[in-house]
Amino acid sequence: MTGGVNSGGYFDWAASSVPDRDIWREALDISMEHFGNPSSIHRYGIAAADILAEARRRCAAALGVPAESLFFTSGGTEANHLPILSLLQRPAAGSILISAIEHPAVREQALMMRNLGWKVHIVRPGRDGIITPEAVTENLTDDTALVCIMAVNNETGVVQPIYRIAEAITAASAGRKRPKFHVDAVQGVGKIPLDFSFPGTCSAGVDTCGIDSAAVSAHKIQGPRGIGLLYMPRRQEPFVRGGGQEGGIRSGTENLFGAWALSRCLEKYAFTGNEPARNGFRSSYEEALIRMDDFIRFLETLPCARIIPQTRGLQTRTPESGSLTEGGLSSGLRFSPWIIQVSFEGIPGEVLVRSLSERGISISTGSACSARKLSRPVLEAMKVPKQQALEAVRISFGPLTREEDMQALRGALEETVGMFSRHR
Amino acid sequence: MTGGVNSGGYFDWAASSVPDRDIWREALDISMEHFGNPSSIHRYGIAAADILAEARRRCAAALGVPAESLFFTSGGTEANHLPILSLLQRPAAGSILISAIEHPAVREQALMMRNLGWKVHIVRPGRDGIITPEAVTENLTDDTALVCIMAVNNETGVVQPIYRIAEAITAASAGRKRPKFHVDAVQGVGKIPLDFSFPGTCSAGVDTCGIDSAAVSAHKIQGPRGIGLLYMPRRQEPFVRGGGQEGGIRSGTENLFGAWALSRCLEKYAFTGNEPARNGFRSSYEEALIRMDDFIRFLETLPCARIIPQTRGLQTRTPESGSLTEGGLSSGLRFSPWIIQVSFEGIPGEVLVRSLSERGISISTGSACSARKLSRPVLEAMKVPKQQALEAVRISFGPLTREEDMQALRGALEETVGMFSRHR
Repeated sequence: MTGGVNSGGYFDWAASSVPDRDIWREALDISMEHFGNPSSIHRYGIAAADILAEARRRCAAALGVPAESLFFTSGGTEANHLPILSLLQRPAAGSILISAIEHPAVREQALMMRNLGWKVHIVRPGRDGIITPEAVTENLTDDTALVCIMAVNNETGVVQPIYRIAEAITAASAGRKRPKFHVDAVQGVGKIPLDFSFPGTCSAGVDTCGIDSAAVSAHKIQGPRGIGLLYMPRRQEPFVRGGGQEGGIRSGTENLFGAWALSRCLEKYAFTGNEPARNGFRSSYEEALIRMDDFIRFLETLPCARIIPQTRGLQTRTPESGSLTEGGLSSGLRFSPWIIQVSFEGIPGEVLVRSLSERGISISTGSACSARKLSRPVLEAMKVPKQQALEAVRISFGPLTREEDMQALRGALEETVGMFSRHR
Repeated sequence: MTGGVNSGGYFDWAASSVPDRDIWREALDISMEHFGNPSSIHRYGIAAADILAEARRRCAAALGVPAESLFFTSGGTEANHLPILSLLQRPAAGSILISAIEHPAVREQALMMRNLGWKVHIVRPGRDGIITPEAVTENLTDDTALVCIMAVNNETGVVQPIYRIAEAITAASAGRKRPKFHVDAVQGVGKIPLDFSFPGTCSAGVDTCGIDSAAVSAHKIQGPRGIGLLYMPRRQEPFVRGGGQEGGIRSGTENLFGAWALSRCLEKYAFTGNEPARNGFRSSYEEALIRMDDFIRFLETLPCARIIPQTRGLQTRTPESGSLTEGGLSSGLRFSPWIIQVSFEGIPGEVLVRSLSERGISISTGSACSARKLSRPVLEAMKVPKQQALEAVRISFGPLTREEDMQALRGALEETVGMFSRHR
């Protein structure tokens, strides 16, 4: 219980990250000291409300958005749910457009809406794992009320062209009401350059042209489980209601421990791509790019290893090339440097996970949420052959991943793969 | 930031309680050590899942219910929402019956369901603040799918006859489908003897006869904000969906910090009324009964003080009388010994709150959730005259409330009330 967290051999940061102990402890102290209910009007309540406001301001500064556009939630799942559930306060049902590679928090909730008369259109990615703007606009209908496309896929690390999708939705909606555009940014914020409030090209008669809402989670960026953020720059009337906290967008007594911890993690890691280096984020991001390219070069030495999608290759950019500031998602970066999906021919993914586990190496098949299920909907949607999909595993890294961890990972993979080759 | 929490003069425990620092620190250490995603199948995930299971078992043992009937939520609000939202997976809309004194988490969410064709019947309490079983059954209709009655009102401390209501619903439903019965137990669990799984008298043809779901919150019993429990002994298909955590009842990566802290708080304070004294709960509860009676005796010395409801009087019971084990809510206890609502004639509640605040005493008008609003729906429903309702304040205590705190409270009330009398 004392000393540092033992995270040796941990390569499942995309499922949950290794805590930043200093931040968690600071958040605990602050939240214990400010124990009042932030809605109370006495000094304990006011002190707690002040801390909450400070946490929100810090999040906003780190994300480059107004504090008024941020609402604390219980995590990424709830932040993904709220814009979908908000549709239920509308007078009539319409359509929802989602991608086939969304996290279950979006996919399963959207599908449940069918019970209330909503139609759901599902857009497939290409074999490269990318949802194109064209595929989105082809599936828009007159009654599309909401489009949900994630920023970074949690299984493959494929970066989606959300800025171009936002602009394509705007263009396709000229002359009529533009659907809301929701972005699950859980694997994006704090991991790749990402700017929620980008300068879009609005058509005449269109209110908004960018992202209408986005979901953020703390535990993917070294914060605690149980806290997230909903970015919502223009109010969408809530369907889920209660005491009216968070401007009515998310009711329930506010989680000060989580809010403070999330704000500090965002300060440490969030990066919009258009600002100067700060707090070591850029260096950990650049390290991640180099680490991933090294790892891809290593995988290329294993004859049975096949990266998913096949189109993934090296992408190291030097800071001098300027690519890190050339617009983040909209150009340049095609894959998260923190996540890679790879199959090993002849070795079922589950077997590899267990075999590596015996060597002290923790990776995963699919996402944690689907770890106990056999289906791999993201890979199916990418038309990865069924056999290969069953052989696929996800390996994910974090800012605390050290070169000695990578050596251990490479060694264990070589050993395991070699053992299986000999047995064939 | 160091040393003990300064909670002197804090009399708003019903809004949020003073942290149990040992429990919070223990939960932090455990959750930092077990940082894996409980859904992951590697050793970090399994270790986290084990801790979560242990927390659930501890909660279950403290509440006297099966571990399988408990689902961690982000707090009392979400635990109240889930059974209401679950109605949306039904093939057709029906009716919801709630009381007029429910917390906004229940009231506002139920009212939103009207947008989707659901009818909401609202049952009023008597002037004594009690929802009678007769008032509930009179308002049942053939299509009533859910009844929501809270265990303890958060403003008046009035204990509702939930066991008798459960039995009355069963009796009234003979021969047809019994509505689900949901109990908001946020101000009950850990505060008064409360048993979710009581022996009801089931009619023939009726599946269940007790409580179908109940909501618990940690931050009302010295735990952190952002964690709660839904008790649901028989599965109700969820409408809110995602990664499928918590048996599919509540999706989202599990908050281990909160879950562990809640389990320890419940171990310390939850009490079913039918078990031997444990962990000092009984003594703090008995102290609360005596403290409240002393305080009521003090209020009776202030000519302008009027307790709401008027029917509230002393209720100290000695353990020898056996009343503490004679069935908890179903008999004996009529008011929470932790909460009292009182008006001071001629002093607007808000003025009194601010005046006491200047003397270092923190109380509240209404609930924290309504602190910034002027309406007092609970008092209105009890037909408290408008003028008196505006003069009403809530004073609430906790296990750390000491006699010197009470002295300070009494002194400040005497001074303030005296000052206002002289000015009239």
